[in-house]
Amino acid sequence: MPKKIRLGILGGGGDSLIGVLHRVASQINDNYEIVGAVFNPDFKSNMAFAKEIDIPTNRVYPDFDTMVEEEMKLPVSRRIQVFSVLTPNFLHFPMALKLLENGFHVICEKPMTTSLEEAKILQKAHKKAGTVFALTHTYTGYPMVRQMREMIKKGALGKIHKVDAVYYQGWINTIIHDKKKRSSVWRLDPKKAGISSCIGDIGVHAFNMVEYTTGLKVKSILSDFNYLYKDNKMDIDGTVLIRMSDTVKGVIRSSQVATGEENGLAISIYGEKAAFKWEQENPNFLYVLSDTKPTQVYKPGHAYNTKLSLDGTKLPPGHPEGIFDSMANIYLGAAKAIRGRKYNDGEFPTMTDGVRGMNFIEATVESHKGGNIWVDLEK
Amino acid sequence: MPKKIRLGILGGGGDSLIGVLHRVASQINDNYEIVGAVFNPDFKSNMAFAKEIDIPTNRVYPDFDTMVEEEMKLPVSRRIQVFSVLTPNFLHFPMALKLLENGFHVICEKPMTTSLEEAKILQKAHKKAGTVFALTHTYTGYPMVRQMREMIKKGALGKIHKVDAVYYQGWINTIIHDKKKRSSVWRLDPKKAGISSCIGDIGVHAFNMVEYTTGLKVKSILSDFNYLYKDNKMDIDGTVLIRMSDTVKGVIRSSQVATGEENGLAISIYGEKAAFKWEQENPNFLYVLSDTKPTQVYKPGHAYNTKLSLDGTKLPPGHPEGIFDSMANIYLGAAKAIRGRKYNDGEFPTMTDGVRGMNFIEATVESHKGGNIWVDLEK
Amino acid sequence: MPKKIRLGILGGGGDSLIGVLHRVASQINDNYEIVGAVFNPDFKSNMAFAKEIDIPTNRVYPDFDTMVEEEMKLPVSRRIQVFSVLTPNFLHFPMALKLLENGFHVICEKPMTTSLEEAKILQKAHKKAGTVFALTHTYTGYPMVRQMREMIKKGALGKIHKVDAVYYQGWINTIIHDKKKRSSVWRLDPKKAGISSCIGDIGVHAFNMVEYTTGLKVKSILSDFNYLYKDNKMDIDGTVLIRMSDTVKGVIRSSQVATGEENGLAISIYGEKAAFKWEQENPNFLYVLSDTKPTQVYKPGHAYNTKLSLDGTKLPPGHPEGIFDSMANIYLGAAKAIRGRKYNDGEFPTMTDGVRGMNFIEATVESHKGGNIWVDLEK
Amino acid sequence: MPKKIRLGILGGGGDSLIGVLHRVASQINDNYEIVGAVFNPDFKSNMAFAKEIDIPTNRVYPDFDTMVEEEMKLPVSRRIQVFSVLTPNFLHFPMALKLLENGFHVICEKPMTTSLEEAKILQKAHKKAGTVFALTHTYTGYPMVRQMREMIKKGALGKIHKVDAVYYQGWINTIIHDKKKRSSVWRLDPKKAGISSCIGDIGVHAFNMVEYTTGLKVKSILSDFNYLYKDNKMDIDGTVLIRMSDTVKGVIRSSQVATGEENGLAISIYGEKAAFKWEQENPNFLYVLSDTKPTQVYKPGHAYNTKLSLDGTKLPPGHPEGIFDSMANIYLGAAKAIRGRKYNDGEFPTMTDGVRGMNFIEATVESHKGGNIWVDLEK
Repeated sequence: MPKKIRLGILGGGGDSLIGVLHRVASQINDNYEIVGAVFNPDFKSNMAFAKEIDIPTNRVYPDFDTMVEEEMKLPVSRRIQVFSVLTPNFLHFPMALKLLENGFHVICEKPMTTSLEEAKILQKAHKKAGTVFALTHTYTGYPMVRQMREMIKKGALGKIHKVDAVYYQGWINTIIHDKKKRSSVWRLDPKKAGISSCIGDIGVHAFNMVEYTTGLKVKSILSDFNYLYKDNKMDIDGTVLIRMSDTVKGVIRSSQVATGEENGLAISIYGEKAAFKWEQENPNFLYVLSDTKPTQVYKPGHAYNTKLSLDGTKLPPGHPEGIFDSMANIYLGAAKAIRGRKYNDGEFPTMTDGVRGMNFIEATVESHKGGNIWVDLEK
Repeated sequence: MPKKIRLGILGGGGDSLIGVLHRVASQINDNYEIVGAVFNPDFKSNMAFAKEIDIPTNRVYPDFDTMVEEEMKLPVSRRIQVFSVLTPNFLHFPMALKLLENGFHVICEKPMTTSLEEAKILQKAHKKAGTVFALTHTYTGYPMVRQMREMIKKGALGKIHKVDAVYYQGWINTIIHDKKKRSSVWRLDPKKAGISSCIGDIGVHAFNMVEYTTGLKVKSILSDFNYLYKDNKMDIDGTVLIRMSDTVKGVIRSSQVATGEENGLAISIYGEKAAFKWEQENPNFLYVLSDTKPTQVYKPGHAYNTKLSLDGTKLPPGHPEGIFDSMANIYLGAAKAIRGRKYNDGEFPTMTDGVRGMNFIEATVESHKGGNIWVDLEK
Repeated sequence: MPKKIRLGILGGGGDSLIGVLHRVASQINDNYEIVGAVFNPDFKSNMAFAKEIDIPTNRVYPDFDTMVEEEMKLPVSRRIQVFSVLTPNFLHFPMALKLLENGFHVICEKPMTTSLEEAKILQKAHKKAGTVFALTHTYTGYPMVRQMREMIKKGALGKIHKVDAVYYQGWINTIIHDKKKRSSVWRLDPKKAGISSCIGDIGVHAFNMVEYTTGLKVKSILSDFNYLYKDNKMDIDGTVLIRMSDTVKGVIRSSQVATGEENGLAISIYGEKAAFKWEQENPNFLYVLSDTKPTQVYKPGHAYNTKLSLDGTKLPPGHPEGIFDSMANIYLGAAKAIRGRKYNDGEFPTMTDGVRGMNFIEATVESHKGGNIWVDLEK
Repeated sequence: MPKKIRLGILGGGGDSLIGVLHRVASQINDNYEIVGAVFNPDFKSNMAFAKEIDIPTNRVYPDFDTMVEEEMKLPVSRRIQVFSVLTPNFLHFPMALKLLENGFHVICEKPMTTSLEEAKILQKAHKKAGTVFALTHTYTGYPMVRQMREMIKKGALGKIHKVDAVYYQGWINTIIHDKKKRSSVWRLDPKKAGISSCIGDIGVHAFNMVEYTTGLKVKSILSDFNYLYKDNKMDIDGTVLIRMSDTVKGVIRSSQVATGEENGLAISIYGEKAAFKWEQENPNFLYVLSDTKPTQVYKPGHAYNTKLSLDGTKLPPGHPEGIFDSMANIYLGAAKAIRGRKYNDGEFPTMTDGVRGMNFIEATVESHKGGNIWVDLEK
């Protein structure tokens, strides 16, 4: 293995949860070294955080533009190779765009952009750049999710005819019923949080999970949002009927007011021959259902699993790995791509996933606002 | 307690599963005695079955009409008091109607009728008769389902804002993919099976569960069916968006092609204060979720349960009771009503549930055929 | 099928839980008719209860001896064929003995007797009588328990080398910590409750489950009891090391002070090829483990199950049956035997199980009192 | 935060699972930097591995003694502060001893030594050194395990009267039944693997879990091993009766031939007021049982948890953390101690745990070989 990949971090300073997640994930497989960062727009905080986690401060920059400028001055052999973009949502697009234009690899948090239009611009820039772009739909890194994808590819389910995905959280329930709270939280302010709350933040994960695991493309959708209160302008709950074809259908359910639900992403996939059931909160258990045989429980690390699943498992069966390990698997895949090695296209979500995700979000808003009508996704 | 209630059985002979279920349920609480029957349209089979289960054959009649006629000749003190209608679906209506018109109590399998129109006629007849009519939505008899209903009544969830119910089975998956099979099964022949397969057979149970537990009425629905094959004319999968009001919404998912699913009825109910999760295949576990407190697992037979739940539990905690016991609870409630005793209106589903169920079924068909549009249920 | 079997009930009146259980179980498969009883030693209560459950009062007798005497006067064709003995423990032996001596069939609650000595006397009487004797180790009636037994017989686990059974309840925890309570409850009074509380009441069920499922015989045991308080004279918790041979071992854990446990009977059986895990509180799920293949979840009612399991399931998969159904399966097996039909020897626990159970109970007491030494069971 | 702690690694090179676990765990909380190592006794492999994971090779040493010697020459400000000892078991003692004698902090894999005698020598050396010694009983790092410890300390269970711990694995089942395999595996060769296989490798984890969570000390034990074959000299299965006092008892069950079990460590703790149930393979669910209230399910990251539990959780509820995170929590605690900061004594297992563990292992061997007799642990 060559030297560690030189990684720059944008955002994720202080108590940022997404910061911890990416930092840890990048370290887990001994592939990356954090060599530079703009953790925080405030330079003082930025430097303080770099010291706190003991990152060399000489490449901790005052802002993103300076960072790019200074790094470009460095010889390629020392220059940051890949940036992790962990900034607030609206900054993903301009930062990723500039990075791609300057030839950097990019690992980008979701949502990739704030609109489909931006997404398409980024897609073009990426094609031109030819560098690696990985979108961190974290949940695709779980071994059992990868197992589903590979087994489906190999035909284990036969023709799929039904998909049921859900992403239920409850945390906005603690905010929404208080008029003052709900009118002051930035997450529920369309000016700050964009066109969608529930679908944009979590529904899109479920959508990605559907397409990632099944290999099918959603063709059209019909959505119904719930705002709970007339003065609330953001969807905090949405059910989306989906069609992959006239005879292959499904539903994506998402909510931020599913009281008491923590991070309830789950998927069921039904095919002619068999079915899958998987839940994010018990990620190491994959249930394989049949009409005529006993349900089977697949778990990571067993020889019966596919290579893609086994590559994402570090320890023998019965040693639970979690969400940090899942994200680490995405970083591992990106590392292979950055180093120009062979990799399975399921090892990290791509620009295409990002564009489709934005398409999905905009379509659900259009459907709901249009009176719960069918809206096609672009091909 | 007075003498056992004199019960007549219509249908349910031979290997009939519904026959066993009702027969056992009627015996469980020492309330009923089977004194007459038309188990089977064929008199020979009818008599043979009566002998097999050792029912006195003197009141085993050749057909329904004779049975009513002969019983009416008997003095009230010997006459059958209540009939269990377990015949094929299309016979529920004419039989129940005639029984009510002759002053009998009726315990009726679902679907109550084959159309909303019939349902309304029956409803009128019932009002006129003033006898007891119990519809066997079996699942409402589970102690933990009753626990949900009572806790919601007492405000344990606060204002409910979201309901998610599902009823997934997989058995038609073993039929549908074979053209010959799917064109010959009576269940998929609209002439024999009525206007709906999936919603009519199981979706309506989920609908009933929603209204039974929450006490809310579904105001309008939007449905999307899946037929899987163009030559199949019956819904075998349907997702239904539901609205109890503009801000209280939900979804009912049902399928008969959810490969490997057995009898997957489940419901999640989300309110301001707390939420419920319950699954029919693990009926003795009720999960009570909160945003701030640990999830609680309620189980039957504990002093902390409501009276309605405890009345439906015969043994101490940890002794699993099942679907026969659930049905027995409905029979127990009906017995109280038949004897003119006090009972909780949650002890058995009623004519109103039957009418609403038919309304729901017809509305989902109308919605789907109309292009997935919103259809109001009657008030 | 011939006429229903004429059943007499001893004990089980009033609110008796065991009474409900047997009464319901006897009705479930249309095999028995209750024609006589001594529900209660007090004749008034006895008659009142008979009326309450609407049993003909002409064969409700003032006491057991009268009952036997009077029934013996009846012609065989009208005489009670089988008695269910549900009286307090110390009465099981004398009643069962007299019944066998008078040529009746007997269905007997456990513990069969209060000592091994009595058990052996009963065994001799039974051999002489040649009638049917069924001991209601209720849990052996569950379809998935029967599935274990049959699969093991067929070699599904290969050679078994380890068994781990447990029966944990917590209810004595609410009594034991209060000196007054613990010194006044009859269950903790050796004069009234016999030589053992925990092992005698529930540990013996776990022991029976071990021998029933595996077909192996426990050869020797070493036990350690816990009394929690020096003034308490009854075991309320006991762990028992068991040996089927020098290289086939296991453990039986039982407790009545396992706080919060309800009726936690469970068993794990490990063999060369595979293993079983089963829990009474989720009786319809049987886990089949392998070192190299995914765990399989067997459920009742599927064609993949054994005949003995399927015979004990009345409805299709996904319709939970419970403990009443389990007991009903034992009654069903006994009915076959009483009618002289062919039956599988796993359909009801026998005299042999009763003798072994008493042997086990006495051996655990001997082992503990002897300083936790190995004690052999009789062959 | 000061600079990262300078960490040296002994062992854990190549595909070593324990190597990955410690390396990742040390990185997760930004506390440690690996600055030197002897990954492998073979210098070539050692260097190759260092390059593979891109560790500076200038402090990759040919052997342990050289490493210590060279590091001692460095000024304290550059010298390795703490060593992770991941070498084969028999090397733990001599390495840890020398490290302590030279004033290093030590993070040591278990078993700490190969005998109680060695353990006591190490304990003395540690007392003299005054440095930090952390024993990686990994499972104590799980947030829900820490939650048990703290809740018990605060009296949530009341007086504990019963503990039931288990550690079942099945992997030796794939070896033991083949005479050739079982006589050639080093794990079953007493000369290479020490006096105990099952208890020494995993039973001791269960023992540690008992003492860690309850705060109680096991006073005496009685064990029964199973060797399965006469020619096998190592315990591969052992059940251990434990006594904390004459009235506080329990059992530790461990097996390496529990077919199909993966890494089945679990514990149940019963007290006067409540009980805990926890399983390593679902580490984020802690069940709190009561005799009178619904079971509660505690999960990490909630405000209702104790500080020690919350400190070990990086993300909000519903984001599963696993065994790497658990080990990272131990490294985090050790880092606090190494930096001289305040820490909770539950943050990492200590020398005392190591000594008690060796005492437990030796006592179980003595008990079994003595004919399953009670053996006291030292105070």
